[in-house]
Amino acid sequence: MIQEDKLIAALRSRSAGFIGDDAAVLPVGMDKHPVVTKDLLVEDIHFRIRYFTPQDLAHKALHVNLSDLAAMGATPSYIVCGIALPTHLHDYGESCLQSLVCACQKAGVILIGGDTTASPDRLLISITAIGYASSSHIRYRCGAKAGDVVCVIGDVGCAHMGLVGLEQSQRVPQAYIQRFLRPEAKVKEGVWLGRKPLVTSMMDVSDGLYIDLKRLALSAQKHAVLDVDLLSAHLMPEVSLLSAVEGGEDYALLVTMSREGFATFAKARKAWSMCRAILRILEKGNAILLFIYCGL
Amino acid sequence: MIQEDKLIAALRSRSAGFIGDDAAVLPVGMDKHPVVTKDLLVEDIHFRIRYFTPQDLAHKALHVNLSDLAAMGATPSYIVCGIALPTHLHDYGESCLQSLVCACQKAGVILIGGDTTASPDRLLISITAIGYASSSHIRYRCGAKAGDVVCVIGDVGCAHMGLVGLEQSQRVPQAYIQRFLRPEAKVKEGVWLGRKPLVTSMMDVSDGLYIDLKRLALSAQKHAVLDVDLLSAHLMPEVSLLSAVEGGEDYALLVTMSREGFATFAKARKAWSMCRAILRILEKGNAILLFIYCGL
Repeated sequence: MIQEDKLIAALRSRSAGFIGDDAAVLPVGMDKHPVVTKDLLVEDIHFRIRYFTPQDLAHKALHVNLSDLAAMGATPSYIVCGIALPTHLHDYGESCLQSLVCACQKAGVILIGGDTTASPDRLLISITAIGYASSSHIRYRCGAKAGDVVCVIGDVGCAHMGLVGLEQSQRVPQAYIQRFLRPEAKVKEGVWLGRKPLVTSMMDVSDGLYIDLKRLALSAQKHAVLDVDLLSAHLMPEVSLLSAVEGGEDYALLVTMSREGFATFAKARKAWSMCRAILRILEKGNAILLFIYCGL
Repeated sequence: MIQEDKLIAALRSRSAGFIGDDAAVLPVGMDKHPVVTKDLLVEDIHFRIRYFTPQDLAHKALHVNLSDLAAMGATPSYIVCGIALPTHLHDYGESCLQSLVCACQKAGVILIGGDTTASPDRLLISITAIGYASSSHIRYRCGAKAGDVVCVIGDVGCAHMGLVGLEQSQRVPQAYIQRFLRPEAKVKEGVWLGRKPLVTSMMDVSDGLYIDLKRLALSAQKHAVLDVDLLSAHLMPEVSLLSAVEGGEDYALLVTMSREGFATFAKARKAWSMCRAILRILEKGNAILLFIYCGL
């Protein structure tokens, strides 16, 4: 407990006055909706101490949450962080929390509180992130319509290649290892896209393209079919089809819009620079066919 | 992942439409401040599967968070829940999440989202709770002044007696075991007290009277001395002084007010029915003496 107090005192000075009570008091929320998400990272499930530095872990724990807010079109503002820390990882955990404060500053969010506790053997970090968005800028999963175009903002499969490299000591590009260790949430992109009325739905790709496209389609009460030949043609170098389809953790965004809307979208140079691949949704019986329409 | 989807689908129908996207969208927040807290419970640190039913765990994970909001004077509204679940505890975890939904309904809060993930061996549950309060009703830790009275709302030491009973198979009153397994957050009391202008500071007793009184005093930039003789005279039957001073998890509230304010407070019958023991703060050099002023 007293050790917790020390840690809290160290964090307090960098928390804009939020930390120190039983709970954190946020400003009264104007006309925007608070948007809330939570993701856990568990040692030996999501990360290994062997190859994650405390800085990597802090960055990733933050960005997997920021990615969820970005996928809703919300601007991240605050996080609360819980950390369960085994004795032998005390220094690691302290360093991780300090890095988290830095990562927050870089991302423009404030660490407003949390909980540090002991753990019998493994480290766990749990972050809840709070963002804000006007109701007209919020995007849900369920809006995709037959005929819509699906844009993939970012690459898929790279993080999984990086994971395989780390786990099986295979040679893979350093950039892919970095993608796995320190994914960058597409916050600017998500917020920018949320403000475009032509965007009909949005979500992030955290569990892999196959699972997450399926979720997107099911949310719109459709079925999804993925055209793997077209996907293969648009992958980053050395990225296997398996990694692209089933590997998660790249934190790309899936964004749907009508074909007419897409024509407008495609005119914006900024839009093109964000897109890695573009899929199209077609209705065929009960199914939606998803295939690559255009790459960078 | 797919198992997670099933679980989420089951919870969604009972979540007032919040669950199903990357993040939950809350209503625009009127003129009240959102108040946010987070507490983790780790298997074999905070609970054991051996004697915690899934219902107990759900109740406790919720109420330790509600207690933090109560201590700020905030009315709880929403929670997000993260659970890390080892394979052999899948059924236990599912039952725990279902119980959590029931416990939320009972407490008038809504489960709006979260994260379920695997865990190598131990279960962990992490809840973030969000409440609301007008700025004039929020109470912080730091407001206590020399001469203030400290009221302890609720008992101290009972939960620790219960824990000792469970861990060492000692005979202790069943009520104390229940206190440890299913503490009741003092939500009504906290909200009621937050609305009294005479209350100068408030916090909950989660880590034990000694540690938490010290925190309260330090927040007001004082030191605290506890009069153990007076404390002993006001304990519940069979509760040891050690349990009362060092045992935590009763989730009583510590509330400070001026002596004049206390006279008004004491006139309210409701106030008396909430108080278990009343301590008084006196300044003596650098120290605050805390002693029992009056019991029920």
